[in-house]
Formats: sequence, C-alpha cells, structure tokens
Amino acid sequence: MTRFSALYEKERIIIESRLSKALKDRKPYSLYKPAAYILESGGKRLRPLLVLFSTKAAGGDFSKAYNAAVAVELFHNFSLVHDDIMDNADKRRGRPTLHKKYDLSTAILAGDSLLSVAYEYLLKDAENNTAEILKSFTQGLIEVCEGQSMDKDFEVVKNVSIEDYIIMIEKKTAAMAEMCCNIGALIAGASGKEVKALSSYGKNIGIAFQIQDDLLDILGNESEFGKAVGGDLIEGKKTFLFLKALEKSRGKDKKEFLSVIERKGIKRDEISKFRDLYCKLGVIDDAKFEIVKYSGKALAQLKYIKDPEDREFFMWLTDSLIKRSK
Amino acid sequence: MTRFSALYEKERIIIESRLSKALKDRKPYSLYKPAAYILESGGKRLRPLLVLFSTKAAGGDFSKAYNAAVAVELFHNFSLVHDDIMDNADKRRGRPTLHKKYDLSTAILAGDSLLSVAYEYLLKDAENNTAEILKSFTQGLIEVCEGQSMDKDFEVVKNVSIEDYIIMIEKKTAAMAEMCCNIGALIAGASGKEVKALSSYGKNIGIAFQIQDDLLDILGNESEFGKAVGGDLIEGKKTFLFLKALEKSRGKDKKEFLSVIERKGIKRDEISKFRDLYCKLGVIDDAKFEIVKYSGKALAQLKYIKDPEDREFFMWLTDSLIKRSK
Repeated sequence: MTRFSALYEKERIIIESRLSKALKDRKPYSLYKPAAYILESGGKRLRPLLVLFSTKAAGGDFSKAYNAAVAVELFHNFSLVHDDIMDNADKRRGRPTLHKKYDLSTAILAGDSLLSVAYEYLLKDAENNTAEILKSFTQGLIEVCEGQSMDKDFEVVKNVSIEDYIIMIEKKTAAMAEMCCNIGALIAGASGKEVKALSSYGKNIGIAFQIQDDLLDILGNESEFGKAVGGDLIEGKKTFLFLKALEKSRGKDKKEFLSVIERKGIKRDEISKFRDLYCKLGVIDDAKFEIVKYSGKALAQLKYIKDPEDREFFMWLTDSLIKRSK
Repeated sequence: MTRFSALYEKERIIIESRLSKALKDRKPYSLYKPAAYILESGGKRLRPLLVLFSTKAAGGDFSKAYNAAVAVELFHNFSLVHDDIMDNADKRRGRPTLHKKYDLSTAILAGDSLLSVAYEYLLKDAENNTAEILKSFTQGLIEVCEGQSMDKDFEVVKNVSIEDYIIMIEKKTAAMAEMCCNIGALIAGASGKEVKALSSYGKNIGIAFQIQDDLLDILGNESEFGKAVGGDLIEGKKTFLFLKALEKSRGKDKKEFLSVIERKGIKRDEISKFRDLYCKLGVIDDAKFEIVKYSGKALAQLKYIKDPEDREFFMWLTDSLIKRSK
C-alpha cells in the first residue's frame, strides 16, 4: 500500500464512522432506518474524499470539511435511491435496493430525507463563504436532476449523439465531482484561481470516471465490479461504447447495434458477441483514449495546487481511478 | 372585497406570474415541463404570501422577498408531488396528479427538481443572514419529511394519540408555515424577538389550518373544497376528528370507529352516518375549539408587529383562514 492509499483509507474510515452517526438517534425510525440502510452499503466514498483533499490542497485542514464531506455522500445516496427506483434496479452493491428492501413510498421519502440532512450537514461547514458553498451544492443538485432526466430520455430517443452523451454525464456524474472539489476549496477559503482549478479537476475526472464505468461494465470482473458484466448492453443503455460503436459500424454490424435499440437490450448469451464487436470496431480503445484525454485535462489543473505533496496525492488518485477495476 | 383581500390578491398574482417564469427556458423539457405542470394548478399560494407579509411586517419591502416566496412554493409543490405518489392520489385540485399525467419516474424526478430550484431561488434573496435563512429552510424540509413519514406510519399504527397527531401536523404542515414566516422576518433583518414572534405565528396558524382542513373534509362543500367530502374517512385517515371520536366514543359507537381502522376506511354511503356520529360525540365542536385555540396563540404573537396596518393584515389573514370553505 502506498502512503497515499493509506492516507485515503484513513480518511475513508473517518467518513464511514461519521456517516454511521449522521442519522442515528433521529426520529421517526420508519424514516431514518431505511435512509441509514443505503449508507451502510459502503463504497469508495470518493465524493467526500474529493471534498476533504480539495480542502487540504487549498490550504485547509481536513477537520474544516468533515461535515461537508458527509453532506456530499448523503446527497450522492439520495440520488442513488431515487435512480434505483427509476431504473427498477433490484440490487445495489450486492444488497437489495431500498425500494425492494422496503417499499416505494419509503424509498422516495428516505431519499428526500437524505437530501434534507445533506443540507443540514453542509451548513455546519459553511460558516464562511456560506452563499457560495450553498450555491455550488444547489447547482450540483440541479444538474444531477437534469442529467438523470436526460439519461432517462436516452432510453427512448433513438438518435443520441456522443455530444449529447457527454453533456448527460457532465450533468449526471461530473457535476457532482466538480461540486465536491469546488466546495472543498471554498471551505478552505482558496483563491479564485485555486477554486477554479480544483473544480475543473473534479469535472474532468468525473467524466473520465464515468467512461471508465462504461468500460468496466463490459471488461470488468463480475465479482470485483459488483454488477453483472454486460449489464448496460442487456438493458440497452446508450453508453459511450455503444454510441461510438453505432457511429463507427457499417453494414451488418450496424444492423446489430440498431437492433439493440429496437429490442431495448440484448440477451445474456449475446454479451460476448457484442464485446467482440466492440473490440473489432476499436471502441474499447476509443473509450480508453477519452479516459486518458479527460484525466489529462484534470491533471493539467494540478499545477495550481501549492504543496507538492497534495499535488502528488491528486496524481495518485487520478491514476488509481482510471486503473480501477471496480 | 376588503382592502386586505385586495392586497393579498395583488401579491398572489405577482407570485403566480413569477412562478410561471421560474422553470421556463430550462432544459431538458422532459424534466421541467412536468415540474411546471404542478405549478400551473393554482391554489391560495398561502406560503409565499406568508413570506412576503412577514418581510413587510418586519420592516422590509416585498421586493426583497419575491424569490424566497417563489422558493417556498416550489418546496411546497415538491412535497405535494412526492406525497401524491405515496398516497396513490389520482387528482390534485381537479387535475390528474403528476405521476398519473406522466409516470412514476418523471414525478419523482420532477419533485426533486422543484426542490433543487427552490434552493436556487432562496439563495437569490439570502444575501444577508444567509446561513440562518438556509438553516430555516433546511429544517423545514427535514420536518416535512419526518411529518410525512409519521403520517404514513399512522396508516398502519392502531393506537395513535391526539398528541402524536399534533406532533405529526406540527411537522407536516405547521413547520412549513413557521419556516415561511421565519424566513420572511430574517430577510427583513428583523430583531430576534420579531423573528420569534412571526415564526410562532406561522407555526400556530399552521396547526389551526390543518385542523380546519380536517374539518372541511367532512363539512365542506365538495365543489368549493375541490376534494370529495368525507375522503379522509373513506381512506381511513387518522385525522383530529377521527382520533377524538375514537377517544370519546363508548360501546357501539366505539366499535364503529374501531371497525374503520380494521377495514382501513369506510364506504361512500357511510359518510353521513359517521358525520352524524361526529356531531353526536361533539368532536366537530372540539375541532372548532382547537382551531380557535391555536389561532388565538397565533394572534397573541402579533403584538410584536410594529406597524398597526401590518398587524391588522395578519388579523384579517388569520380570520379568513379559519373561516375559509376551501
């Protein structure tokens, strides 16, 4: 374990412990127990860590940003709970989704409640720069809703372009990472230049992260990734890989991809056929190129981080995110 | 029309116009068109008016609080959209509910989105006292979620006390009215005493308003009230009237009320029988007494309002709320 992964892990454990206390002792239990359920499912806790390390990189102590870090994770989990309902998902990180474990009403309300407590936590760390921090969080929320709506639209729209797709993931995934870094920097009272650089880092790493996610869906190891390999194809999702394949393919291959749209997904036993098509068309490499491109844009922002140690941490983080297998 | 109702109406029209612009030109339409749909259904716009007149009563101009007024109405509509899903309601103010007009996913997301834009609008009017205003709004949101959760719990819990019921409506209904008055006063930069008095006014009038709502359900004129008379009884809702009747009844009457709980509601042709029982047991008068009690508590706070004209407006508002027929 490198010293950076040890540092990440140390802070992740602190966040884990704070998250487990965030909803404790609140009543009614019928509301907060289900809300706590989704928080117990673990995960990388990437978003709170982005807040913490952005605060540090901008010259602040971790201790100034723990509540804000909890806030972004609560916000993220709000969006997971509601998205899982909309996607009719049965499982999340190997456990039943909230609406399956409980019921629809409980899940809607638990999601709302996670968001309400998220704002409460954010306000605890927003004594300075209050308006800007709150605006950033709210803008993140607006974009996440817009991105999710676009993603739903893509299920029925036939001619989605790569540009549309990038706008969608900018909103659905990257806006939240951007917001995390932005808030972290604002809490530290960073200069405008630093705030902008860290926000841009977050946005670009967010885009790279999502394309990597699309890639892992088809290349990943099922037990490590925690989701069924090829799930996006089975559901007929218009991922970067799929849209790029649709764009590049001709003749018989193109017909195959068009039929996925018509059929709204493929059968499980067709996955390897489509994976081979992706390889043949070179879209796996195209996705890898985009990941390198966006993570490169992210890395270019790190020059504005003053302390070399903080800069190196973000370089390590970028590298481990684009090399991750889950 | 009194001069106060003319004043109310004038400001209501301004709010109506601002609401109609709040979501315009935002994209994607698939998100904002459904969100705008619920805003078009009109209503008293009581909550934004509470914000505006609290600002005025605390010495500020209406113009300082129009965005905050829009914010509370957006927040209120967020809660209506999600509550209608949970209650499986078909109609709202005579129109199909959002999830019936569109679908479940659209309604969940439109609700989330209304809340996100609510925070955006609130921030526009929260340049001063930012943290306090945002805390108040967030606390209102937390309580509305808790109140809705308790209300759902009451559907299955058999022994709900009047005290439980009051706590529930304090959270589900009164907390938002309290928040509106609180925010209005904070925007005007009111003193602590004024802020407290106006907040307390809002809370108490909120409780009175909800008990009045329970009463209108059984006494109201269907075409005026916009909901089917006796709807609460048909759904087996544990309203003030029902809980009080359960508490006061004995023998055969008590069995009737217990059977409503067992059967989870009554049939349409039983409404007049239960209305007669309510009258016989005196719970209609009990409800009227509570309405007078809580509106009296609200009125007692008005002495902290400096301008007699503003004080009179709130007296008129209190009176018209408890005498309303819809």
